[in-house]
Amino acid sequence: MADDKRLTPRSESFSAWYNDVVQRAELADYSPVRGCMVIRPWGYAIWELMQQGLDGLFKETGHENAYFPLLIPMSFIEREKEHVEGFKPELAVVSHAGGKELDEPYVVRPTSETIIYSMYAKWVQSYRDLPLLLNQWCNVMRWELRTRLFLRTSEFLWQEGHTAHATREEAEEEARRMLGVYRRFQEDWIAMPPVSGLKSESEKFAGAVRSYSVEALMQDNRALQAGTSHFLGQNFSRQFGLTFQSEEGREEYAWNTSWGVSTRMVGGMVMTHGDDNGIVVPPRIAPAQVVVVPIWRTDAQRVLVLEEADRFRDQLVAAGVRVRIDARDHLNPGAKFYEWERKGAPFRAEIGPRDVAKGQVVLARRVPFSGSQRKRFLSREEALATLPALLDEFHEELLESARARREANSHRGISDLGELKEILDAGAGLVYTGWSGDPDVEEKVKQATRATIRVIPDDEFASSSRPSRCIGGGAAKMEVAWARAY
Amino acid sequence: MADDKRLTPRSESFSAWYNDVVQRAELADYSPVRGCMVIRPWGYAIWELMQQGLDGLFKETGHENAYFPLLIPMSFIEREKEHVEGFKPELAVVSHAGGKELDEPYVVRPTSETIIYSMYAKWVQSYRDLPLLLNQWCNVMRWELRTRLFLRTSEFLWQEGHTAHATREEAEEEARRMLGVYRRFQEDWIAMPPVSGLKSESEKFAGAVRSYSVEALMQDNRALQAGTSHFLGQNFSRQFGLTFQSEEGREEYAWNTSWGVSTRMVGGMVMTHGDDNGIVVPPRIAPAQVVVVPIWRTDAQRVLVLEEADRFRDQLVAAGVRVRIDARDHLNPGAKFYEWERKGAPFRAEIGPRDVAKGQVVLARRVPFSGSQRKRFLSREEALATLPALLDEFHEELLESARARREANSHRGISDLGELKEILDAGAGLVYTGWSGDPDVEEKVKQATRATIRVIPDDEFASSSRPSRCIGGGAAKMEVAWARAY
Repeated sequence: MADDKRLTPRSESFSAWYNDVVQRAELADYSPVRGCMVIRPWGYAIWELMQQGLDGLFKETGHENAYFPLLIPMSFIEREKEHVEGFKPELAVVSHAGGKELDEPYVVRPTSETIIYSMYAKWVQSYRDLPLLLNQWCNVMRWELRTRLFLRTSEFLWQEGHTAHATREEAEEEARRMLGVYRRFQEDWIAMPPVSGLKSESEKFAGAVRSYSVEALMQDNRALQAGTSHFLGQNFSRQFGLTFQSEEGREEYAWNTSWGVSTRMVGGMVMTHGDDNGIVVPPRIAPAQVVVVPIWRTDAQRVLVLEEADRFRDQLVAAGVRVRIDARDHLNPGAKFYEWERKGAPFRAEIGPRDVAKGQVVLARRVPFSGSQRKRFLSREEALATLPALLDEFHEELLESARARREANSHRGISDLGELKEILDAGAGLVYTGWSGDPDVEEKVKQATRATIRVIPDDEFASSSRPSRCIGGGAAKMEVAWARAY
Repeated sequence: MADDKRLTPRSESFSAWYNDVVQRAELADYSPVRGCMVIRPWGYAIWELMQQGLDGLFKETGHENAYFPLLIPMSFIEREKEHVEGFKPELAVVSHAGGKELDEPYVVRPTSETIIYSMYAKWVQSYRDLPLLLNQWCNVMRWELRTRLFLRTSEFLWQEGHTAHATREEAEEEARRMLGVYRRFQEDWIAMPPVSGLKSESEKFAGAVRSYSVEALMQDNRALQAGTSHFLGQNFSRQFGLTFQSEEGREEYAWNTSWGVSTRMVGGMVMTHGDDNGIVVPPRIAPAQVVVVPIWRTDAQRVLVLEEADRFRDQLVAAGVRVRIDARDHLNPGAKFYEWERKGAPFRAEIGPRDVAKGQVVLARRVPFSGSQRKRFLSREEALATLPALLDEFHEELLESARARREANSHRGISDLGELKEILDAGAGLVYTGWSGDPDVEEKVKQATRATIRVIPDDEFASSSRPSRCIGGGAAKMEVAWARAY
């Protein structure tokens, strides 16, 4: 793609801006396969850092990784009634293999509850085998008509946790725990602070008793469902004979949960932090936290500054910082600045001959330092000593700014459908109202406003005085957060 | 699976032993999907450590990771003539998706040359965009009739490196470099020393100009192709229009390589090091390098030894050792010893009340220390100070013993087909002979002996005096290594 092509500004079209920056930051590209994308090295490295962070949290909470087959017998998917209804329209079907038509077709996994619980049924005999806490990193496929890079693709990468427990209480606790892990991860790694809560019946996972989700608010004020966690009850254990002998010697069905986040989070990162110059990658998921751009005119200067850049890099790496030197000969420094801004590297360190002489580096932050300061001149020692803290500080500022934006665009105290529609049309983000719990009201509001109930918010996000009036009239039983969503 | 079921000894049936230990060590299990396996946590954690080790080597040699679609348009696979001939019989085909029959069917990737080089054609314009050095970790599918856990499954996990270069020389060098990386990895991580070399024309990858492989010799003296690296010439770049403008301004086709290793290496590890008590996991790929088994009778002792075990674990972890404490209440120590032996943990540390009093640990190695010593009594300090070195020592001993076994079962100086058949029937491993290069001779030997040319060995493995006579009679043009293979 030509480097000189201008990025669409967000104000012109947020959606065109998104497509532009995702491709121009070389996060991903369209592929010749309908609805499927290619994740390019910069995008994939961000995903790998997300995986590392999450994987650590999964292990801290007692989970292990495993791998289950890509293909699932059609009859398995069909066994749980709501599950098949939810997924059937999106299935990709393998009907032929090895040159023959298959007796029973397989589907490419859209999610793996059925195949996984069929294996759990084989492995679990006694309460001593529980809880069984596994996670799988893999690709899944859901045939989508309208696709967007990272946000909605027919194939995507994700993790799916699947657990089996001896009691309902333990499984419910697990579903809530993993929702908390997702929230913590998105705040602490992506600097993307979501609102968490319970899904309404109409929005829950096909086959779940209860679904929870984390919903992040994007810069265009649409909500992004950024992760879900489900309490499955005994719906799947009954279909797959996942029983165990209890401590009292009774045969009982296990209680399950499943939970997942995907490469969609990369899209969330883009739409949370990006600006008209490109994407902004928060430090903890940045493949290069500092990009060193050496600046020279003469060959002698080139040798000098590259030597210095190498030394600086080695010292930073020893301090635990991820560093890349951009020593390409055919690009001038300005072109490199522009490229790394587009790709969102948190910091750029410029080193020219004068800086070598003075023992300094010029440090530019992807988003200007507070006080709109674009560059800081630091001695090499200072730079080394402060960069880890500067990275943390940048993370905190990104998180705070995203949180402030989310709150500034959240509205409470709306009690009437007309008012709700008006405020949404005016560009509101999350709108909190009362709800009777009646699905007809939910549907009516959805039709009228194109907004859906994102969550019944967790206490932390609920209004201090809960609305007493349902948005559809009458008494409210609970508070809900509405938004137009991805 | 019942713990008291005896493992088939290797002498009775190596193949039954293999199936037993893979399942009883909980590496993998059969799935309800034909030919596909489930990789269980212990097996998957070994694979993750293999991935980490390899990924580091790939990055050291300048490669980056990316991700390409699972599905490949049928027409892409068909474009390279030899490629489609080689893979067509093994393809799984997606004909329906989203409730409709597809205009053009997709295949589930058996390997990704076609889709990847179609993208490279889009990204590469100039010699400045080269070399392009990408790797992908993913699942692939090749429909197999006869499957074995890890060794041959319809779906498997692997990495596939795909590179594009401006010159033939550079691409050939890359193919050789990655072969060397595989060899180094298998020696330094899996303690599995393969023989490396060039494949004969009949054994090369469908679509390659030249294929190289690493071949490891298993305990039953069959060879396992444990990794391949291919020089693809311009075969794919011509089919997918992967051209670049050279420094001189000419439009030229790029030169490609591809290379891969898979979960098959887990099977190689089992068959290289396992014994009649279970598998043996070499330290650098062992998810738990030391398993601490606390031993107690009374509740007071339980508290005491668990405290001590925790402290010891924390200290070992700080020293960079991977440790697991097996504190399960319902199993006696003997049952735990037996289980971890089956699962191949390199070291077991026993801590009982007497050991706490003496400030010691009892250290048992999965394969007795040299001198057949089964256990060592070490002070806690000694154990902490020496364990990292003991882990390295164990690795070296495993590697040396595998190398010695390979050499003891390699035969040279055989010049006649009858003799070759006889020595193979008597259980020989690799047999080095002369070969004219005539494919008819190769086929005739294969029919007569069920052995195939594993490689035309690299210099390091070639006989000091190269055979002058071809195994099929007449003059030899080269030396080859024959073996019956997996």
